[in-house]
Amino acid sequence: MIHIHGAAQIATLAGASTRPKTGKEMEDIGLIEDGGIVIEDGIVVFVGTSGEASRYVEEHAGDKPVTVLSAAGKTVTPGLIDPHTHIVFAGSREFELNLRLQGAKYLDILQEGGGILYTTERTREATEEQLMVETVRRLDRFLAHGVTTVEAKSGYGLRLSDELKLLRVAHRLNAAHPVELVSTFMGAHAVPAEYKGDADAFVRLVIRDMIPAVAREGLAEFCDVFCEEGVFTVEQSRDILEAGKRWGLKPKIHADELVSCGGAELAAELGAVSADHLLHASKEGIRQMAEQGVIAVLLPGTAFFLMAPPADARAMITAGVPVALSTDRNPGSSPTESLPFIMNLACLTMRMTPAEVLTACTINAAHAIGRAASIGSIEVGKQADLVMFDAPNYLYLQYHYAVNLTDTVFKKGEIVIRDGKRVFT
Amino acid sequence: MIHIHGAAQIATLAGASTRPKTGKEMEDIGLIEDGGIVIEDGIVVFVGTSGEASRYVEEHAGDKPVTVLSAAGKTVTPGLIDPHTHIVFAGSREFELNLRLQGAKYLDILQEGGGILYTTERTREATEEQLMVETVRRLDRFLAHGVTTVEAKSGYGLRLSDELKLLRVAHRLNAAHPVELVSTFMGAHAVPAEYKGDADAFVRLVIRDMIPAVAREGLAEFCDVFCEEGVFTVEQSRDILEAGKRWGLKPKIHADELVSCGGAELAAELGAVSADHLLHASKEGIRQMAEQGVIAVLLPGTAFFLMAPPADARAMITAGVPVALSTDRNPGSSPTESLPFIMNLACLTMRMTPAEVLTACTINAAHAIGRAASIGSIEVGKQADLVMFDAPNYLYLQYHYAVNLTDTVFKKGEIVIRDGKRVFT
Ligand SMILES: [Zn+2]
Ligand SMILES: [Zn+2]
Repeated sequence: MIHIHGAAQIATLAGASTRPKTGKEMEDIGLIEDGGIVIEDGIVVFVGTSGEASRYVEEHAGDKPVTVLSAAGKTVTPGLIDPHTHIVFAGSREFELNLRLQGAKYLDILQEGGGILYTTERTREATEEQLMVETVRRLDRFLAHGVTTVEAKSGYGLRLSDELKLLRVAHRLNAAHPVELVSTFMGAHAVPAEYKGDADAFVRLVIRDMIPAVAREGLAEFCDVFCEEGVFTVEQSRDILEAGKRWGLKPKIHADELVSCGGAELAAELGAVSADHLLHASKEGIRQMAEQGVIAVLLPGTAFFLMAPPADARAMITAGVPVALSTDRNPGSSPTESLPFIMNLACLTMRMTPAEVLTACTINAAHAIGRAASIGSIEVGKQADLVMFDAPNYLYLQYHYAVNLTDTVFKKGEIVIRDGKRVFT
Repeated sequence: MIHIHGAAQIATLAGASTRPKTGKEMEDIGLIEDGGIVIEDGIVVFVGTSGEASRYVEEHAGDKPVTVLSAAGKTVTPGLIDPHTHIVFAGSREFELNLRLQGAKYLDILQEGGGILYTTERTREATEEQLMVETVRRLDRFLAHGVTTVEAKSGYGLRLSDELKLLRVAHRLNAAHPVELVSTFMGAHAVPAEYKGDADAFVRLVIRDMIPAVAREGLAEFCDVFCEEGVFTVEQSRDILEAGKRWGLKPKIHADELVSCGGAELAAELGAVSADHLLHASKEGIRQMAEQGVIAVLLPGTAFFLMAPPADARAMITAGVPVALSTDRNPGSSPTESLPFIMNLACLTMRMTPAEVLTACTINAAHAIGRAASIGSIEVGKQADLVMFDAPNYLYLQYHYAVNLTDTVFKKGEIVIRDGKRVFT
């Protein structure tokens, strides 16, 4: 039994495990002042005030050993959840930075054989073991920033064998690393060099070969596609996501990132779990997303790193779209693991409130990856995924900006970060 | 003797100890690939390629013990220098965040008795010991982000006894903490409540009582003033800075942050060491600064946190103004110690290049606090203040954004951070 005692604040995010929070609900983070939490066998068995938690321990501990941990002066939240990453890849692309500072656009770099295709070459060359090593370092950084679950997309293989390789790496790391990985197949991340000028043929390959193989091996829960002018059209995206659905892969979509092209509308039409990016989503698309309960996964770090204006989070929240946030961790447009910083950015560049961003990175993010029954809030019966921040209250997380305040991290009730450093048990 | 061996890159920033870098010079960071550094008695005694450094050690070590440190895969830079902080204060102001997100402006909060005056109340109530404890935590965070020297301004006392208290805290910490502190007297940071409506009387107090007392105790090297509409006029600022000069305090100035009011021009007129903020500096003011060699200390974090457009760094660099960067660490408008993140921001919001921002946080920052003879570059004879970043090249520092890549920090040749954690010897 673990007893976390005397937390300055606990943000439980309780009460929204069956559907994500929308509108004003996003402001309600289930705050407890002077709180306590009791964990048993990796599960939260009690959360309440410090006094109540102490009584619970007295009444239920019996002969069991109790580890007491003081959270004095600290704020406890659910383990943060990143619902959109491209974390399995080889290499890095810092050399593109000077080009971009001189005004090159993302699609320019892509068309010059840089961008995704550069990473695809490196990733195809890499063995599964090499990819494990590189990805572990990224997962370690996520964990050090309080992130206990990440979604991981394939999409730097762009041919069957390599897409499977990426998904297997994610699968193996999910078992071997404290960070929980939820896999998405995204073979349609870009048209590979060998299919240049014949995207339709590549789409057929994705539908006929890749999706069935991924589904048969049980390597992904979601299917995603980069629906964008110059990448995959709405029609191609629809075909891919419908094929995914037939094979049991729930649809997600990279929508309206660079231009408005009907991605949000397609997400609503297909009943996608989430539509992501949405910098240029149409009003009508947002209205339809709200109607269908499609979650908007917003990626303000990508906008920041690409020096573009961010998505209109306020319009989406006002329209009733549930909003989640993510790093979009990838080697081109968002090379960061700091989800806490993404929250800072969401406040300062999208004017989301400190409560809204916490909702967006916990329970709403859990819904965006189909895990809200087990994670995303601190509630009795849920997995004990928790972060203790070096912050006297939740507002402070958005105030002391760009500094990692993560003090202690629990994954399934185990302490995996203590005093900011990885703990091995 | 310490031998740092096999660094992927060393950015020496050499060759600019007599005057700061301007224009294209800011792009020259003195890069060495596969480099080595030798330190003796806290001083750099050799820097060059790995091979050259090894030969130096062979020829000069004699019987002396040699500690060899591998910097394989790492990038080494001079210890970062923050030339503009308000680090000595009590309390925090996260509660202002929701107000600001709802549109309250900085001067609104100031006029409602929040802002600087809120911190002034808490700081006046605090003992020197309490301020030491709070400030140490901030210095620890600076150090963990690779910052080995900070300028520290007074200005939350706003009466003689309390201004002296703040400067004494900085003085004591300079002796007790690895981070080197350079003190600036900034009694004219705001008009305190007891002088509301009679700024002139407060200015007289600053000039007649405070400046002489600070100078007599030898507690500051610089004098600064918040020259801004609604705070101190150009005339009042001139009077204060001229009084400071008479007492041997070199002028600095908070200029043109919120409106254009002639601060840059005043800095040039007085031959100020630096003019800081400059979001609304006039073209003519910038021209005059270039002519007089006044350093522009830019604070993109403050603009970011106040949700304002940043200063026009490019115009200043083009005009020949030497540019430095700083966190502006303070409890109201920039509560961060991450100077590395400020570099990220300078690239992404002001389009400075990765080389320029490194110049701005090392040798140019050293000039902005009158320390370029001893720090700001890795050169034979200079203090061995170094940072080893977990980055294969200097570009990577601006690429893997919002994550602290600081691995090892040397202050005066002593290892004070190792593997990201404080080392006590
Ligand atoms: Zn993505
Ligand atoms: Zn300032």
